[in-house]
Parts: sequence; C-alpha cells; structure tokens
Amino acid sequence: MVEVISLHKIRVGIVGYGNLGRGVEMAIRQNVDMELIAIFTRRQPEGVSANSEVRHISEIESYIGKIDIMILCGGSATDLPEQGPHIASMFHTVDSFDRHAKIPEYFDLVDASARRNGHASVISTGWDPGLFSLNRLLAEAVLPEGNEYTFWGKGVSQGHSDAIRRIQGVQNAVQYTIPNEDAVNMVRSGKDPVLSARDKHLRECFVVAASGEDLSRIENEIKTMPDYFADYETQVNFISAEELLEKHSFMPHGGLVLRSGKTGVNSKQIIEFGLKLASNPEFTASVLVAYARAIHRFAKEGFAGAKTAFDIPFGYLSPKSDEQLRKELL
Amino acid sequence: MVEVISLHKIRVGIVGYGNLGRGVEMAIRQNVDMELIAIFTRRQPEGVSANSEVRHISEIESYIGKIDIMILCGGSATDLPEQGPHIASMFHTVDSFDRHAKIPEYFDLVDASARRNGHASVISTGWDPGLFSLNRLLAEAVLPEGNEYTFWGKGVSQGHSDAIRRIQGVQNAVQYTIPNEDAVNMVRSGKDPVLSARDKHLRECFVVAASGEDLSRIENEIKTMPDYFADYETQVNFISAEELLEKHSFMPHGGLVLRSGKTGVNSKQIIEFGLKLASNPEFTASVLVAYARAIHRFAKEGFAGAKTAFDIPFGYLSPKSDEQLRKELL
Repeated sequence: MVEVISLHKIRVGIVGYGNLGRGVEMAIRQNVDMELIAIFTRRQPEGVSANSEVRHISEIESYIGKIDIMILCGGSATDLPEQGPHIASMFHTVDSFDRHAKIPEYFDLVDASARRNGHASVISTGWDPGLFSLNRLLAEAVLPEGNEYTFWGKGVSQGHSDAIRRIQGVQNAVQYTIPNEDAVNMVRSGKDPVLSARDKHLRECFVVAASGEDLSRIENEIKTMPDYFADYETQVNFISAEELLEKHSFMPHGGLVLRSGKTGVNSKQIIEFGLKLASNPEFTASVLVAYARAIHRFAKEGFAGAKTAFDIPFGYLSPKSDEQLRKELL
Repeated sequence: MVEVISLHKIRVGIVGYGNLGRGVEMAIRQNVDMELIAIFTRRQPEGVSANSEVRHISEIESYIGKIDIMILCGGSATDLPEQGPHIASMFHTVDSFDRHAKIPEYFDLVDASARRNGHASVISTGWDPGLFSLNRLLAEAVLPEGNEYTFWGKGVSQGHSDAIRRIQGVQNAVQYTIPNEDAVNMVRSGKDPVLSARDKHLRECFVVAASGEDLSRIENEIKTMPDYFADYETQVNFISAEELLEKHSFMPHGGLVLRSGKTGVNSKQIIEFGLKLASNPEFTASVLVAYARAIHRFAKEGFAGAKTAFDIPFGYLSPKSDEQLRKELL
C-alpha cells in the first residue's frame, strides 16, 4: 500500500497525443498521486478522441499555475528540439529525446531554459536512452574491467520496415530485430566474444507484395540492401495484408544489457538487465510518468535546470516515503 | 577512458579482513581514482597476510585526516551494529548491513552518528540488499500494477550447509540454493504464478559422510529437516572430502529480480535483472567500492548523515564526469 506523502496530487499535462501520449494518459491512471489536467495537440482539439481534456497547443501558456509538469510526447527529430527548451521555460518537463549523438547539445538547451525560468526538467528518459543507459552505467561502475553488450529486440524497427516498403511491388512490411540467441548465450556464459551489430541481431521481415510481383526479386532486393540488411542474417516471409494487420500491428520490443566482468584474480561476474515489452510506447510512457514524479520532487526542493536519469536517485521515482522504501524494498 | 575529475585520489580504509575485505582490497586496484591506505583488523596485524598496510583496529582513530572513507567489511550479526555508528563518528563509511528487518533501526543509528559528526555514510549496499533492492524499487515505480519475484542462486547457503553439518555422521557439506527453472520460465512468460519460496527454489546438497555411516539415514534426516529442507525439492549427493574441496569450495551466487506488470488495456511488460557471480564476496566488494565513490562525492558536497542505495543517483557511482556520462552512456 502506498502512503501518499502529499495531499496534493501532481498535476500533469501531456504535449503530443500519438502512441506515446496515449500511453502516458493510461499510465497516469495507474498512479494515485497524479492527475491528468489536459492534453495539448497541434491538431484541432475537437478532432481528437481522448478520455481527457484536449486543448490546442497554442493555449498551453494559459495553464501556467494549473499544471505542475508537462510530459513531452513529441518526436525527437523535429518536435523536441523546439518544444523541449520552449516548454521548459513555462513548466517542469519530462521527455524521451532519443537521438544519442545530440543529447549533450539538447541537454544544454533545456538546462539553460529551465534554469533561467526556475523550472526542473528531465530529458532523454524511457528505456533506451533511460533504463538501459542506467544499467550500462551501473555495470561499468561496479565491474570496471569487463565488456558491455546491448541487444535489441524482439521488436519492430520502423526504419527497416520503411526501407522494405520503398521497394517496388511491396505494399506493406514489418521488420523485427531479433537478438541472436547464440550470441546472447556466448555472452551469458562469460566467453567475452567480440560481436558486431550483425553478429548480435537477426532480421525477420513480413512483407505484403502486390499481386503478380516476382517474390524472389523482392526477397533478393531486401537481403542485399546495403546498411539495412546486406550484412545481417535476414529472413523474408510473404504474407497477406490481412495477416499482417492481424498479427503484426502490435508494438512489442525489448532487449538486453549485459556486462561480463572480472574481479579478483579471475572471477567472472555477469550482470544482466532485460525487458520484454508487449507495448513499447506504453512502457516508455510508464517510465516517463515515474520520472515526472522524480523531477517534480526535485522542483519542490528548489532545483532548477535539467537532469538525466543518471542524476536521479531511484527513491525519487516512487510515491512511497524514504522510510517506507527502506522498510519494504531494501 | 576515464577522465579523472580530481587530482586527489579517494583515500580508502578497510575494516575487517575476511572474504569481503579481501574482495575490497582487490576491487580498489581496479579503480584508478582510489588508493587503499590501510586495513584494520581485530587480529594481531603481524599475523595477517595482505598486500597492504595492516593495523590493529585500536589504531583507527590515528587515521583521521589520512583516510577519507572506511569500507566496513564486518558481519551484520554483531560487528556492524557496533562498528557502523562508531566509525561513522570518525570517517565517512560504506557497509553491507544485510539484516533486512533491522535496516530501519540501523539506518537511524548510523544516520544520527554521521550527522552529529559531519560525516556521510551509505548503509546496506551490495547486491541484496543493494542492486536487487534498486531493481525492485525501479520496477515497482515503472509498473505499479504487477507482481515481483526474487529468485536466489545458484549459490551456497551457509545456513543450510551448517544445518547439514550438524547431522550425526556428517563430516562436511555444501548446500546450493537453485532457482526452479520451471518457475522462472512461468514468470518470464507473463503467467503471473503465485509462488512460495519452495516453489521457486531447489536445494542441492553435497555431503561428506564419515565412513561406515548409513547414508540413507543421513539423506532422510536432511530431506525431512523442518524449515530448512522438508518443504523443498532436495537432492542429496554423497561425495569424498577431496571432491568437496576441489569442486565446492568456491563462492558462486546470483539470482533474479523479475517484475511482471501490465500497462494500458492489457499489455504485459516484463523487467528482469539478473546476476551470475563466480565470487559472491568479490562482487559485493565491487559494489561497496562504487558506493564509496558516491558517498565521498556527497560528503564533498557537504552532506552529513546516512543514505541507502535508494538515495544515490547512478552518476555518483562512476569516476566519469556528468558530461562524459551523458555523451558516452546515455
């Protein structure tokens, strides 16, 4: 049972209402210390079907004082670089900015805006970046002498699915990235293999071809596509449009972070963190909501600026008090 | 590559030189930002064989100003309840106090002593309590609707090994606790089983009997022993003293923390954290050393009092700067 610390619920807003935003809306309902005040969208609010108040993004400023924290659910390519710093000037924020190479630059922009306006923001959380990053850090700090391995999947890669769809004669396609079990088992057994991305992953494709197309030509074009498939073990399955819709329109994902290290004279030590997710966006949303709680607590303590998951103690993620956590979960 | 932040190494002392203390001594050598100043023991220092300076525990006070942080490697039954609060009055400390039910009380004692004397202490770290606790907290915060499962092993249980050794006619014994693979797989597949400790674990015993003893009597006494074995699937193997020494004198351990949760309408989400350790004390030691770095940083920031792993951001565990971590590991 959660002894709720504060009588006031954390008032949350959602910016962007795609898969991730819908996941956040549902995740907030699982957290008794939070309430969803409004969803902000660039679309016409009347056209958006949600179980909550929906407002046009242009009205966001009028919610200053009514919403504590905004969970930013836009994309990392163009939405967040603009929205992140801007909204951090008005509210505390959480986001899942996931362009690894751009994180330092994005951090500085959000940090400057939040700091200048007395707000607190956590950027780039979710599961990768996010929980996977935390486990990479932890394992490296505990086992400085060792090797780290990240495997992704089984999960849909939008980029690879799109690449198949661009092939002539393909009507639709879904591509799953799948960890190579042999590679995973080599790491788990402490063999410390040297593995490239292609050694670690298989690619499984489900393709709907237009009628009359030469399937072997399509299969060959997929398997020889440079960068995307040529270097990987790739499996191609042709199926009907109905079967694709029925069996492959979910968004599972997951993966593993492993570190194989050595202590003492020669003791092999293996740390493994894994996720098996039926819904990638709903899980990412659940992580964002827990970090919303954390950054709200930092804000109440007077912190202004940006943080990442690396800067946040796990105790801040929970609605339970520090005393309760020590008693129940340590 | 680690860009060492400070020119001064963290000066570490070790209190207690059993398996854990020796593990800490070796772990410090893997961390370039630390140096071991001295080991403190209750034995006669001349009789202790170590690769470092060894001092009698009565000299510890003379090291104030020469050592930043003491890593306490005594036992939780009688050593730490006395040493923890006492040494926290002189130095920053780290310990692995592992009596779960006593943690709140122990926390308060160390916290009061450290606070009064301007020191910083982290208690009850290692892997359980420690990394397992962190994963229980994280998974519960991210997936509030779900079930948590902890499995221990494969690893030696000293308590169960001792219980076998007390049986008449037994010369020596080692007992391994082993997770039940069927139970683990049920959890991994999202079946949310209701499992007792006996459902989750098997017990494998290696026993050296005195010559001429009735082995079936010993086996029966083991398998029917209340609390320890009667409720478990127990396997008994009689082996020679030589084989026990050769094959079963290591200290492997490990385990799994799993959470099976639900998001959205009905999406099953599984979070798993696992350890496979060739040396339990060396791994615990490696965790203690990483937390020594973290609490030293809190001390430099002016914090006084006690913390647990729940209160410490992972970034503090690493010798890398926050900037480097964001760039390399997020």
